[in-house]
Amino acid sequence: MDPMSLPANIHCSIARSLELLGQKWTLLILREALRGRTRFGDFQVSGVPSEALTKRLAALVNDGLLTRHPYQEPGDRTRYEYVLTPAGRHVITVMAALSAWSDEHQPLEGGPSVAYTSISDGRPLHLRFVDDDGVLADPDDVRLASALGRAVPRRVP
Amino acid sequence: MDPMSLPANIHCSIARSLELLGQKWTLLILREALRGRTRFGDFQVSGVPSEALTKRLAALVNDGLLTRHPYQEPGDRTRYEYVLTPAGRHVITVMAALSAWSDEHQPLEGGPSVAYTSISDGRPLHLRFVDDDGVLADPDDVRLASALGRAVPRRVP
Repeated sequence: MDPMSLPANIHCSIARSLELLGQKWTLLILREALRGRTRFGDFQVSGVPSEALTKRLAALVNDGLLTRHPYQEPGDRTRYEYVLTPAGRHVITVMAALSAWSDEHQPLEGGPSVAYTSISDGRPLHLRFVDDDGVLADPDDVRLASALGRAVPRRVP
Repeated sequence: MDPMSLPANIHCSIARSLELLGQKWTLLILREALRGRTRFGDFQVSGVPSEALTKRLAALVNDGLLTRHPYQEPGDRTRYEYVLTPAGRHVITVMAALSAWSDEHQPLEGGPSVAYTSISDGRPLHLRFVDDDGVLADPDDVRLASALGRAVPRRVP
C-alpha cells in the first residue's frame, strides 16, 4: 500500500514535501546544487552512487526542482549540467532548518559548518518564526496546528 | 561505505541532521508527536508498519528526541507513551520548512493543511529568514555559504 494514499498523508503538506524531498540522497544533491554546483561529478561528493544519482537527477528535473542544460568542453562529448529552479532554490529553507537543528542539538566542536547569508550584501541570516507583523516569536511557543487554527487535540485516554 | 564518513558529510550540519531525521518514517512519526500524539497506535496513522515503528521509536529515544514513559489502563498490561524532548520539539522548524515549500510549490486545492501558531495566544506564525537585527530578508536573497561566510565558489569550467 502506498502510504501517500492514507488520509493522514494525502492532504498533508509535510508528507507531500517529504514524498519528493525525503527520497534518499535528494537533499544531499540539493545541498550541492545550493552551493552552486551543477555537474554530475560535483554531486558525487556526498557519496551518492552513480546509478542513484542519475535516477534522482531525473526525478528532480521531472518534479521541477532542477533544469537540465547541455554543455560541451573542447574535444569532449555533450554533457548536461543541472541548475536549480526557483522551487529548487527555495529548498534552502529546509536546509537551514536541518542545519540549525543539528547546530543546536548535536553541535560540532568546530562550530557550524554552514551559514546563510544575503546574496546582495553578505549579512548573516537566520531562520526564525515571526508573526504577521514580522515580530520574532519564541521558538518554544510554536505549535503545529491544523490549518483551521485549531491544534489537533491530544488524545484523551 | 558509510556516506557519513565522507569529508562532505562528516562535518556537515545538514548531513548530520539528515542522518537522524532523514530515516524513512521518522519525520512522519515526529509530525504526529508534534500534534500531541504519544501512543504507538496513534503514530500508525502515517502508515508506518509496526516493526519499523518499533525500530524508529527506539532510535528516537536513543537519539534524545523522545522519552518513553510507562502507562497502564485498567485491566490492561503496562504500555509506553512517547513524549517529545526539547530537541524533538525543535524539529517543528523542519516541519514548517517542509510544509511551506509544499504550500508554495505544489499547493493543495483546499489550501494549506497545517499551520503554526503561538501556544500562548494562538496568533499565526511563519518561518522566515531574518538578519541579526530581526529584519525580514527576501527569501530569494539567501545563499548557502560556508560557516566562514564565504559561499562555496561555483566551479569554473
